[in-house]
Amino acid sequence: MRHGDSGEEFDAAGKFAFPAFNNGHTHLAMTLMRGAGDGEKLQDWLDNTIFPMEQRLTPDLVYKGSMLGLIEMIRTGTSRFLDMYYFVEETAKAVEKAGLRATLGTPITSFGTPYYKDAKDALRIAERQLKSMRAGRVGYCVSPHSIYLNDEETLIKARELADKYHVWLSLHVSETRKECVDCHERTGKWPVEYLDGIGLLGENTVLIHAAWLTKMEIRLIVENGSSVIHCPVSNMKLASGGVMPLHELLDAGVTVGLGTDGASSNNSLDMREEMKIGSLLQKSHRWDATAANARTMFRMATLGSTDFAFIRLDDVRMLPHHDLISNLVYSGGAVTDLIVDGRLIMKGGEILTFDEEQAKKDFEEASLELIK
Amino acid sequence: MRHGDSGEEFDAAGKFAFPAFNNGHTHLAMTLMRGAGDGEKLQDWLDNTIFPMEQRLTPDLVYKGSMLGLIEMIRTGTSRFLDMYYFVEETAKAVEKAGLRATLGTPITSFGTPYYKDAKDALRIAERQLKSMRAGRVGYCVSPHSIYLNDEETLIKARELADKYHVWLSLHVSETRKECVDCHERTGKWPVEYLDGIGLLGENTVLIHAAWLTKMEIRLIVENGSSVIHCPVSNMKLASGGVMPLHELLDAGVTVGLGTDGASSNNSLDMREEMKIGSLLQKSHRWDATAANARTMFRMATLGSTDFAFIRLDDVRMLPHHDLISNLVYSGGAVTDLIVDGRLIMKGGEILTFDEEQAKKDFEEASLELIK
Repeated sequence: MRHGDSGEEFDAAGKFAFPAFNNGHTHLAMTLMRGAGDGEKLQDWLDNTIFPMEQRLTPDLVYKGSMLGLIEMIRTGTSRFLDMYYFVEETAKAVEKAGLRATLGTPITSFGTPYYKDAKDALRIAERQLKSMRAGRVGYCVSPHSIYLNDEETLIKARELADKYHVWLSLHVSETRKECVDCHERTGKWPVEYLDGIGLLGENTVLIHAAWLTKMEIRLIVENGSSVIHCPVSNMKLASGGVMPLHELLDAGVTVGLGTDGASSNNSLDMREEMKIGSLLQKSHRWDATAANARTMFRMATLGSTDFAFIRLDDVRMLPHHDLISNLVYSGGAVTDLIVDGRLIMKGGEILTFDEEQAKKDFEEASLELIK
Repeated sequence: MRHGDSGEEFDAAGKFAFPAFNNGHTHLAMTLMRGAGDGEKLQDWLDNTIFPMEQRLTPDLVYKGSMLGLIEMIRTGTSRFLDMYYFVEETAKAVEKAGLRATLGTPITSFGTPYYKDAKDALRIAERQLKSMRAGRVGYCVSPHSIYLNDEETLIKARELADKYHVWLSLHVSETRKECVDCHERTGKWPVEYLDGIGLLGENTVLIHAAWLTKMEIRLIVENGSSVIHCPVSNMKLASGGVMPLHELLDAGVTVGLGTDGASSNNSLDMREEMKIGSLLQKSHRWDATAANARTMFRMATLGSTDFAFIRLDDVRMLPHHDLISNLVYSGGAVTDLIVDGRLIMKGGEILTFDEEQAKKDFEEASLELIK
């Protein structure tokens, strides 16, 4: 069969085709920080490693970091993702180049950063991105970072902006117990309860992490039709504590997707791993080998997917063929081909849309700059 | 540089060399059952899927299943392993063919199986294997399956056999809470305490799983100089409950290795994944991002290694180079080359010691026989 504008012939014989993955939460350009300060305590790691490096970010670094992340995504079968990061227009350029799909947002905070003066400036940048949107594979959303980095006024303005442009509103919430306790002390409400109270929950709201929830908050998520993105590897690696109540959310009818978070807290962007580890975490935590089975994880990892990835049926990790979905989730296998929007992006292990070797070289040089 | 009897030139420029992995516990030929009955409860899975399939095992199936497992091991950088399975002489043949190292043992049980009449017969098979041993890359050990599948007399005889031939004595122990409670009800002692009481703990004893331990038992392991193999993925997947007290064992000075267990309860044989997931499990369980760090896991995964594996330094998952060990543990990367005993086993992604495609074809045909 012939595919889209690449004009490449593609023969799927002997291959297992599956919906390409949708990575529900990442900070793509953080490939730049992969492995830096690993094993430090969360706050030390942020204060001593990540924040100082982020001070030195440039648009060029974000572009090159994004390109490296896209190589990994393509090679592991991901065709779309929801991203939150600085200079995200550069990530947009990279995604256009690679031929993938993405929804991107600038992290909005109430205080100034090297990327904007204040909340007003951040919201202005977000609106500029929304105005620039055209129909296509790359879009924007509104991404207030979190409750703890935003005042109420900024959160409400972010919500209004998302509604005005009919786009997603995505934010980190209830990632750690400390965050929940701090919110409760300050506002008298748990984080999701607080968000509901100020009108932040809607059908276009995407709650990232949502690892620490009360039953009452799960009810609020259901009533508002909001969605949740689960990031098991990041939660485990950063020792966020507790275990996300996945089955309680799914049983209540909440749409739950899966995300890797950034490469600096994972440290990969591989949705196959995310499915496996997400499943293992629930089974182990619940003492129930039937929890979070392969099909549940696979559905979460491929929400809304309209693209296709392929693995050879004789890949050593896909053998034998007792259960191909189980093999994909628990054993893996090398993705050889990826078709996005009818266009062949990778064929037989070769990326067709850009020069992979050059992108890696550019990244290597750029990453050296960052640690200078 | 030139390597051993393969006579192949090997250029390591641009590659990250690391000690090849030592997989401390697996049932290699269980690649045949990968994915079968996944997500069932442990006992249902064993009764309805695994045991009926194992009834139909033949030496030929074990050879072909072992060859498939060896492909995966080579491709993920493992050069040696400790195995427990039926028709294990066939696994020995496969390992010789592939050029890897292994220590193999027939699972000894006090009752008859399709592979031997009774405990006496099982011990006779084990001794035959020990007598056949020559200096080289492949050896045997004595592998009583577990306390719950053996009477005291058989366990003691197994110990005597291991001592007589100066080989490892390896057995599953304290994998589930049920096993511990059952042992305590029957004998008045916890499993490791019971083993100590009948003289089963020695410097050549390898305790597999050891996930449910009391402090007193950790002391007994230290006093006897026994070793432990941790299998985090299998423990999580089978929902064995609880979390192995890794830091308590390491702090007490116990030698702890890492194992994948069989492909049917993992479902891969990839020590890179085992390191990552083992680390995440401890961090998550202990609410401590500094627990089980990359170097700790790397040491456990490469115990006693004298071989080398290689990954390209510009592998997308090895970039950037803030911390190569962290990249290997948390991000991965494709192993391109493997040198075992001075001999090049894989070069630039091509396995040199046998025909990989043919081994996969043979396996595919064989695995169809198994489900007939």
